[in-house]
Amino acid sequence: MRATVLHAPGDIRLDTVPDPVIDQPTDAIIKVDTACICGSDLWPYRGEDDVPEARTIGHEAIGTVVEVGSAVSSFAPGDFVVVPFDHCDNTCPNCTYGAQNACDNLGFTVSGQAEYALVTQADGSMVKTPGQPDADLVPSLMALADVMATGWHAAVSAGVRAGGTAVVVGDGAVGLCGVLAASHLGAETVIAMSRHEPRQEIARAFGATHVVAERGKEGAAAVKEILGGVGGEAVLECVGNDASMKQAFGVPRAGGTIGVVGVPHGVELPIRTMFGKNIGVRGGMAPTRKYLPELLDLVLSRTIDPGKVFDLTLPLDEVAEGYRAMDERRAVKVLLKP
Amino acid sequence: MRATVLHAPGDIRLDTVPDPVIDQPTDAIIKVDTACICGSDLWPYRGEDDVPEARTIGHEAIGTVVEVGSAVSSFAPGDFVVVPFDHCDNTCPNCTYGAQNACDNLGFTVSGQAEYALVTQADGSMVKTPGQPDADLVPSLMALADVMATGWHAAVSAGVRAGGTAVVVGDGAVGLCGVLAASHLGAETVIAMSRHEPRQEIARAFGATHVVAERGKEGAAAVKEILGGVGGEAVLECVGNDASMKQAFGVPRAGGTIGVVGVPHGVELPIRTMFGKNIGVRGGMAPTRKYLPELLDLVLSRTIDPGKVFDLTLPLDEVAEGYRAMDERRAVKVLLKP
Repeated sequence: MRATVLHAPGDIRLDTVPDPVIDQPTDAIIKVDTACICGSDLWPYRGEDDVPEARTIGHEAIGTVVEVGSAVSSFAPGDFVVVPFDHCDNTCPNCTYGAQNACDNLGFTVSGQAEYALVTQADGSMVKTPGQPDADLVPSLMALADVMATGWHAAVSAGVRAGGTAVVVGDGAVGLCGVLAASHLGAETVIAMSRHEPRQEIARAFGATHVVAERGKEGAAAVKEILGGVGGEAVLECVGNDASMKQAFGVPRAGGTIGVVGVPHGVELPIRTMFGKNIGVRGGMAPTRKYLPELLDLVLSRTIDPGKVFDLTLPLDEVAEGYRAMDERRAVKVLLKP
Repeated sequence: MRATVLHAPGDIRLDTVPDPVIDQPTDAIIKVDTACICGSDLWPYRGEDDVPEARTIGHEAIGTVVEVGSAVSSFAPGDFVVVPFDHCDNTCPNCTYGAQNACDNLGFTVSGQAEYALVTQADGSMVKTPGQPDADLVPSLMALADVMATGWHAAVSAGVRAGGTAVVVGDGAVGLCGVLAASHLGAETVIAMSRHEPRQEIARAFGATHVVAERGKEGAAAVKEILGGVGGEAVLECVGNDASMKQAFGVPRAGGTIGVVGVPHGVELPIRTMFGKNIGVRGGMAPTRKYLPELLDLVLSRTIDPGKVFDLTLPLDEVAEGYRAMDERRAVKVLLKP
């Protein structure tokens, strides 16, 4: 099949690789209808994560089941499915506790940006749409595989509550989905920290009541002014680097919580600040499958439209251009069509 | 008055110092009935915190009001009061949010181990007993000034819930009070990590369902075996050093929360572990006043008896011996009588 392969930092190509095959009875294979590029794919692309050897890339995919293992009972070829980036059996003690991200049989989509993808733990992981989805819903369904679930997890981890206040650090696709989640969960004030006009617009469409373009101390001061002199109850850290974490720690109120979902790179948590002000830190890799049924309903009923984060669609052949566009921040998030 | 003064690490004396005086209209002065020595007093005593100059010490005190400032309306001379170690106005935005530890007018008891102590923000901070308390309740009332409220805060921050599981790291007075709190809050399994028999006994009296004497990896394995192979939902970190924090991170289940109340000394939080397993960290300095009304009721109704943590009572004259006894772990916690 044709599949995106990262050979080395900056060297991304569409290659021909062997098709995935059913290895375990719990596996399934999907024909990818739509894939996309994640902000976290940029870490190895930029060389900020090691790339020890060439490998297929892409952990987000939706599409049609083409083959299932002998133990898969809930899905059959022809089903249109959303595949969470983190696969889980949804039955182990971690899953039943709601920590599907730490499933005893955890797996990942590893060839999402390709024609076919293997899903381990298919029964526990995938959710299906009723028939072939309407074309206009496809981007939003695509967003459920990672970014919308991850933004939702940021909001839930930060303790967003109806009538409360939320501040979102990061205006990538996950941050924007965090704004949507915080708004949907009923936060009365949702502050998006963003200095990029197109992203500010999406944030407003997603329910941000305020946009703060300043960063650092000026940004923190602007947030506090909006919030009557105190910081936010719920802060969503949706980037994962040192600067964004420092920004996140500048904006919570005493007793507030930071929900972290940006994969940490070079981050240190300021334990003394956390301790003195009682600022909690929760979150991490999203237990995607936990949220999928609810999020799928919200998308199918057209209540939320996280697909707005896709501002560039490319054929899979042009995946390298997609990476460049995201790396240079010319695109928020790139949809790929195999 | 006679007051305990820390002159330098290891050099603690009962000196004569000026009596405290009302400085602000919101102040009150109490005649100390009972004081005690805190595990955190040992940090400077051991030289692990700087001691730049001689200073009075002791942040825990209960006693009788002898003088109030002109703005104090809820208390009068003769009232018997519990003084939270952290004073607050209980009306500022942080206090009304439940973060009294970060009150806009935060103050501290600074001469608890003495004949008299100044209470800033008396109206917002103190709670009074109905008349002079029964003698047998005095130790438990004393525990409310810090350790019981702090142990309670660990349990609340860790998210202890009825029917849940809790693991307590640290068998000092705060850790033991954390056991009592977790048990009172309804945790079905409460595991105390302690290898000191007298402390194990108190832990059991406080509701520990299990005691794990092993430490490190063996300790974590023992905890997980008790909990059916997964870790604890709620972990109470009640020490604050690197070893105890590492122990705490060995015992939560994925998706669990560590409630931290030990003042951090040389601690680094393992952000990658937190992220991958979704282990939250919450807590910090206790908002003591928030919990005092409820805890006072529980003590007065003899529902909880945190005073059991005091296993040595000394006259204030012998405060230096009290420090030695706690430093050498001959005593869990020392009660002082001026």
